[in-house]
Amino acid sequence: MTRKKQKITLLLWNENLINSELFKQLEFIKEIDKLKLIFRKTRILDDSRHENDAEHSYHLAMMAVILSGYSNTKIDVNKVIKMVLVHDLPEIYSGDIMVYNKKQGEISKEDKEAADKIFGMVPAPMGDELKALWREFEEKQTPEAKFAAAIDRLEPIMQNHAHNGGVWVEHKISKERVLEVNGHIGNGSAELWEYARNLIEECADKGFIK
Amino acid sequence: MTRKKQKITLLLWNENLINSELFKQLEFIKEIDKLKLIFRKTRILDDSRHENDAEHSYHLAMMAVILSGYSNTKIDVNKVIKMVLVHDLPEIYSGDIMVYNKKQGEISKEDKEAADKIFGMVPAPMGDELKALWREFEEKQTPEAKFAAAIDRLEPIMQNHAHNGGVWVEHKISKERVLEVNGHIGNGSAELWEYARNLIEECADKGFIK
Repeated sequence: MTRKKQKITLLLWNENLINSELFKQLEFIKEIDKLKLIFRKTRILDDSRHENDAEHSYHLAMMAVILSGYSNTKIDVNKVIKMVLVHDLPEIYSGDIMVYNKKQGEISKEDKEAADKIFGMVPAPMGDELKALWREFEEKQTPEAKFAAAIDRLEPIMQNHAHNGGVWVEHKISKERVLEVNGHIGNGSAELWEYARNLIEECADKGFIK
Repeated sequence: MTRKKQKITLLLWNENLINSELFKQLEFIKEIDKLKLIFRKTRILDDSRHENDAEHSYHLAMMAVILSGYSNTKIDVNKVIKMVLVHDLPEIYSGDIMVYNKKQGEISKEDKEAADKIFGMVPAPMGDELKALWREFEEKQTPEAKFAAAIDRLEPIMQNHAHNGGVWVEHKISKERVLEVNGHIGNGSAELWEYARNLIEECADKGFIK
């Protein structure tokens, strides 16, 4: 079966190939390369440079693999992995906004349009599925979204802790504000929030945040 | 239930926490940040700089999500996603070696030791599971490994095509050698290999590779 399939004549971009679903999917695959150009406020652990969204999303996917056992409630880890892989894709158009400058629990018009644009590139039904995962992440209501949001916050806390307060110091964020903005980690995982609070407390004890 | 859990007293790195499984897992999570420092021979699509392994692994995970329907045989896409997420982790210690300089189908002693080291950081049974996924990828025998290997090769072909031959030109790789090294894409997906061959042929037609 496979052998026969492989004997297809070489098409050199004949029209059928160009109009195929595969071409559209590969245009999306090329477009998301731009995620590697969206830089975050936080820096990678060795402090040599800012982290980009593709690296961040990679890290979250691995955190989902390793840490899903700490979710407060039973979750579908494969769903969490897909969710974190797509959660920042609209930022290709809308850019990265620091969490401390964001209105909590609100999806901006700009983000919605960016999501329509990027997920609209993926042929149905996959495009709708990925957009629904992005929205679910933003709304933080389901067990998977709560856990995904928890690790999405834990990673920069680990980075800021490693960098003597990092972004918190740079942007003069108070300990109170750090605890407030990141408190929802506890909705996804009590253990991870306990760990995160320890990191934040240590930064306060050392005088990096007030 | 969750509320009670969150009332755990703040421990500030008490000994139980430091010796916990969570601490070991988070040490691994921190260690894999180094994947962001392992640069590949290929460049990101806008040609502005080399791509690193974390970005590459992210891209493959998204390719698995979008393109798994083109596998020659039925595959477990969630397994492919995990496989590509971990497939380059040993390179944190052994570094990136260009595929055209590698002996095909052989796992070097250096790679084995690197895999022991990185996956050995993850508490059992997860560490063994991830190492088995890495080995399965390297051996290219199962349907999931064949497909993962196909997208692992397709991404740099798309990059080299976008860069007028890119690495192939830089390192004087012949068309024959490109076809030989990447031919196993067809074992994972006849359609993706057809597409990849078109990209390679176009580079040859334009005189970028001989």
